[in-house]
Amino acid sequence: MTTPSAPPAVVITPEALLAHWQGHRRLTRRVIEAFPDDQLFTFTLGGMRPFGAMALELLVMAAPMVRGAVTGEWTDDTGSEPRPRDEILRLWDAATREMDALWPRIPPERFQETITAFGQYTGATTELLLYVIDNEIHHRAQGYVYLRALGIEPPPFWERE
Amino acid sequence: MTTPSAPPAVVITPEALLAHWQGHRRLTRRVIEAFPDDQLFTFTLGGMRPFGAMALELLVMAAPMVRGAVTGEWTDDTGSEPRPRDEILRLWDAATREMDALWPRIPPERFQETITAFGQYTGATTELLLYVIDNEIHHRAQGYVYLRALGIEPPPFWERE
Repeated sequence: MTTPSAPPAVVITPEALLAHWQGHRRLTRRVIEAFPDDQLFTFTLGGMRPFGAMALELLVMAAPMVRGAVTGEWTDDTGSEPRPRDEILRLWDAATREMDALWPRIPPERFQETITAFGQYTGATTELLLYVIDNEIHHRAQGYVYLRALGIEPPPFWERE
Repeated sequence: MTTPSAPPAVVITPEALLAHWQGHRRLTRRVIEAFPDDQLFTFTLGGMRPFGAMALELLVMAAPMVRGAVTGEWTDDTGSEPRPRDEILRLWDAATREMDALWPRIPPERFQETITAFGQYTGATTELLLYVIDNEIHHRAQGYVYLRALGIEPPPFWERE
């Protein structure tokens, strides 16, 4: 007779992790919106990239990461050319819809499985997802400094609706 | 007769969430170390707080958040007065040890329980923990911009050892 093991602790459910991420993505969208169109790919501090380039990096990582977690395919055609803010927001909203549609198709066991994302990053799927989320928080926060330096009040960090 | 329900998906274990956070905290420690001592509480951009003040905010939130999740008590005496970089690093390392010691005492079911942190923030414990982690990533990234503007190369974002 074996003692049944305790059920694993539910730290966060798949649904809650997606909701957490989409909350961050709503905030990031507001940061993109807050940039004047003519500063998005021109304003920089400390020799860093303009925020528009960072926003495109986030787009190239978010929906493609979820798509790869579901399908094992790692492709994206977003590109890195500067484009108008409205075009970035349009791509952002399309990514939001794609992520919502794909997420429930991530098999429950996949989160703990080791995968190789984008042909080069190997780790547990959750770690790779967290990396993409954390990278978004990181670059968005740099956008906050850019906005402040431009004299623009950024949206509040805690507001995620 | 009932059909046994599928076990919940393990997105991340308590141990892995702590490891993830401590990886971020090692990186944040390197960002604090990278600041010249005479710029930590003086250098600012865009009218924002100096990075030393942000680092103290992180200290006031991290170990106290874990302590509160275990004990239900929300107290801290770190304070917000400027102090030398070495003193901040010493507090950082003490917090690291305290978090490692306290974390295994968070009851498994606590992560999904609704609690009120610091007397004012109500949510699932995991959401509150993620808020503290995300807030660290956010302010550390602002430190990255400050370092770049000071002509100092920040530590790589992906290095967490």
